[in-house]
Amino acid sequence: MSEGMEQPEMEESDHKEISVAEFFEKNRHLLGFENPQKSIITVTKEAVDNSLDACEGDEILPEIHVLIDEIGDEKCRIEIRDNAIGLDRETIPKVFGKLLYGSKFHKLQQSRGQQGIGISASAMYAQLTTGEPVTVWSKQEGEPCHKFVVRIDTEKNEPEIIEDEVVGKDSDEFPGGKDYYFDHGTTIEMNIEAKYTGGHHSVKNYLKHTAIMNPYARIVLREPDGNKIEYPRVSKDLPQKPKEIKPHPHGVELGIMMRMIEGSSARTVSSFLQNEFTRVGRTSADDICEEAGIDSDRRPNTLDKDEIETLLKAAQNVKLQSPPKDCLSPIGEELIEKGLQKELNPDMIFAETRKPKVYKGNPFQVEVGLAWGGDIDEEGSFDELRFANKVPLLYKKSSCVTTKAVEEVSWNRYNVSQTGDRPQGPLYILVHIASVWVPFTSEGKEAVANYEDIRKEMKLALQEVGRKLGRELKRQERREIQEKKKRQLTSYAKEMGPAIVELAGEGSPEEIEEKIQAMVHADYNPEQL
Amino acid sequence: MSEGMEQPEMEESDHKEISVAEFFEKNRHLLGFENPQKSIITVTKEAVDNSLDACEGDEILPEIHVLIDEIGDEKCRIEIRDNAIGLDRETIPKVFGKLLYGSKFHKLQQSRGQQGIGISASAMYAQLTTGEPVTVWSKQEGEPCHKFVVRIDTEKNEPEIIEDEVVGKDSDEFPGGKDYYFDHGTTIEMNIEAKYTGGHHSVKNYLKHTAIMNPYARIVLREPDGNKIEYPRVSKDLPQKPKEIKPHPHGVELGIMMRMIEGSSARTVSSFLQNEFTRVGRTSADDICEEAGIDSDRRPNTLDKDEIETLLKAAQNVKLQSPPKDCLSPIGEELIEKGLQKELNPDMIFAETRKPKVYKGNPFQVEVGLAWGGDIDEEGSFDELRFANKVPLLYKKSSCVTTKAVEEVSWNRYNVSQTGDRPQGPLYILVHIASVWVPFTSEGKEAVANYEDIRKEMKLALQEVGRKLGRELKRQERREIQEKKKRQLTSYAKEMGPAIVELAGEGSPEEIEEKIQAMVHADYNPEQL
Repeated sequence: MSEGMEQPEMEESDHKEISVAEFFEKNRHLLGFENPQKSIITVTKEAVDNSLDACEGDEILPEIHVLIDEIGDEKCRIEIRDNAIGLDRETIPKVFGKLLYGSKFHKLQQSRGQQGIGISASAMYAQLTTGEPVTVWSKQEGEPCHKFVVRIDTEKNEPEIIEDEVVGKDSDEFPGGKDYYFDHGTTIEMNIEAKYTGGHHSVKNYLKHTAIMNPYARIVLREPDGNKIEYPRVSKDLPQKPKEIKPHPHGVELGIMMRMIEGSSARTVSSFLQNEFTRVGRTSADDICEEAGIDSDRRPNTLDKDEIETLLKAAQNVKLQSPPKDCLSPIGEELIEKGLQKELNPDMIFAETRKPKVYKGNPFQVEVGLAWGGDIDEEGSFDELRFANKVPLLYKKSSCVTTKAVEEVSWNRYNVSQTGDRPQGPLYILVHIASVWVPFTSEGKEAVANYEDIRKEMKLALQEVGRKLGRELKRQERREIQEKKKRQLTSYAKEMGPAIVELAGEGSPEEIEEKIQAMVHADYNPEQL
Repeated sequence: MSEGMEQPEMEESDHKEISVAEFFEKNRHLLGFENPQKSIITVTKEAVDNSLDACEGDEILPEIHVLIDEIGDEKCRIEIRDNAIGLDRETIPKVFGKLLYGSKFHKLQQSRGQQGIGISASAMYAQLTTGEPVTVWSKQEGEPCHKFVVRIDTEKNEPEIIEDEVVGKDSDEFPGGKDYYFDHGTTIEMNIEAKYTGGHHSVKNYLKHTAIMNPYARIVLREPDGNKIEYPRVSKDLPQKPKEIKPHPHGVELGIMMRMIEGSSARTVSSFLQNEFTRVGRTSADDICEEAGIDSDRRPNTLDKDEIETLLKAAQNVKLQSPPKDCLSPIGEELIEKGLQKELNPDMIFAETRKPKVYKGNPFQVEVGLAWGGDIDEEGSFDELRFANKVPLLYKKSSCVTTKAVEEVSWNRYNVSQTGDRPQGPLYILVHIASVWVPFTSEGKEAVANYEDIRKEMKLALQEVGRKLGRELKRQERREIQEKKKRQLTSYAKEMGPAIVELAGEGSPEEIEEKIQAMVHADYNPEQL
């Protein structure tokens, strides 16, 4: 290693390949590993996301345990356990020991994970900061439990298997205790440089937000001091499983279209269009070919670049149905309400799930919720609960489309006071975007890009629940005024009782009434209530 | 492709490897390719950065031509040509047709490029948006000129060579015209989806900023309408070439240390420490071993993980010299002044190059410049010129440490008015950070992370030039007042001439003087000037 360093720079001789693992090791701040406090949240997030995706994929009600121990100065052991169907033996080392390896990247389907980077990057972070490999147990129903100890060979971006064994249920090596034994699932354990803290940016808050958006999951956190926090399951209804879709012609670029044609086994251009795209049937396919002036019976691989470009332009001009919406899986108004209720215990909740829309050919759907009063802190500005595909977003608030949308709403129209653009009061605002492709502003998936179509949907949804909150606040205000009035009149009546009796002896009923009115009105001023 | 899509999700069978090219194709917004307007700046930036790095690496005064033609609706041809030493035949296809391939990643040395992603990602963007490969010509002195037409096989992240030939100087295939023939250098040409615009976010502005920070380069831009803009060379002094350094023990993590030991051929721990790190000599090495309680004569590969951890901690506790600073190449106060002078033509310029400092074991150095008045627009807020390793940063201003530093300075102390934290007036503020490792906030390298050590240096440098500007503004103000006074008194004298003559006949000299004083003081009020 040291030899080459002293040599003069010769551009040719120095060029070499960089593995993606080396790249992300050096740039780990791009993935959320910039400091010990954030890193432990990132590891939790990556593991919990994978677990929830895996459970939902097989329609299992998720049960997830997160166990954290402090094992030294800024060093923690973290174990995360789920009850999903488990991984087969061959897949395990690669999932945890190779970056850019996964099942979701090539699919147009709503999921938490997208890239196949998160959990292996966590393992790489463990290795980098504590020098230790990760341990994984995975068990499928009726199968033995596989235990692997895995390192990442960073220069090759390949897993290096240190241990590979089968452990029996009664073995000491079997993961977990009696209280969290699962017949199927995956457990990952690693030692990382970490700082376990409280506050907004904490594992606890991350899991709380997760629990709100995934109320059909049971999540248990054991903190380093032994304290156990349970986020209970409040619904047994899993949201509908999102379907995978094919690309829509309106969201495809030329280079991709060319690759699709190259890889297609279709015998005619018409059947290529029908097979490879969503919302293209026989009639639309023929329309597209006609618009492009291309014979619909030609073999796709006889098209040259310019013809493909013409075909794509035609496909983008011909009117087609929007992409199907069953690829989306919002959690729905009822579950939003349940989630907010159980974790915040507010006075009022309003939720709204919008209809699906499309941005750049990608279907997406917005949901929002407002929680007001009750156990929520009265002081200062509102709290925000931001989610993308059910995953909490804790960082980069100011550059997130959700924040822009919140600030575009005129909250004081809804009887909520504002400081600048920000609503004030005992208020939580939840915003969720579900999409087959969430446009994150960075790899760490911390904020959603400010696309106008998305912002508009969020704003409309917030206005809808804002109106409901405003009406309710108005009603409450009126009710309070009336109750105070009643209470006050009652106390007046008591005080005035003797006076009235006294008055009763003096003059006609009209005169008495007049005197009473004068007494009441002198004291009673609704403005002061 | 279409078969797998309809199947139910089976986690095991679906897992597969994702190439880094596929990853960045789908996430191209992370690299600066989010829209046609920005993409053309990104392509220019990546090519120009490479050219400048290559020229400086071989101590050649850079000459760079950027030629842009509009070839369709939101489609441009862009050609970028340099006079660096050129690439050898084997290297060419990989540099332009493979992501994460380069010469700078594994070096601790100040350079514009770091990752080996930029230019190949540009080629990938061309291919994605126009379906076309890129063409590269490269010629080394005394060697033939090689022409390559290259595509990226995105699934494999490997170049696919479409043409590979040698072109003679007189051939039509030889790049460039008479006015920009170079005997050595590289030319890249590609067609991309692009929007050529003016304004702050434009190729023109990017090159203007580049010219300011690299005044020893000659840069020529030919705009789509044929208009030619030349940014002339105003200095023939190349800044000192930065030296490559070895890592400093204070900036190394355990995982890296373990890998260094694994790959080392040193026979003793002491020689390992001396060979692999900067600032560790025999004495320091022995001190470290003693502090760690490890025999300095042991073979490094006999150390276990815990011993390596102890050794690293000891190395971080033992007092060592800071890393050497000759790995940095600031451009210096004189060149900053020349650069600002030639592109802005202001009234006053102040520049300051601070001494090198260290953050997290990485040497860095800050330079700033202020340009005031002259051709600079009077209206509104200041303009910022942000640079990292001499590369202009045009985006993400608000999240950049430079902006925070500017806002922390009390400009009104220096006779510069402020609106909020921002100075107002005919002012350009230049901030440059040079480092072997610039902590960018994203892969697109658009903003520098807000590290306290860095912000502090920037603030101190800005205060230094701010004071100079303030003094000069004060002096100017005083000079102006005096000149106005002089002018005004002269005009009084003219007006009063006849009156004095008239007075001269009435009374003693004392009386006359008194009357004159009374006249002058009645009219003359310095406060009003």
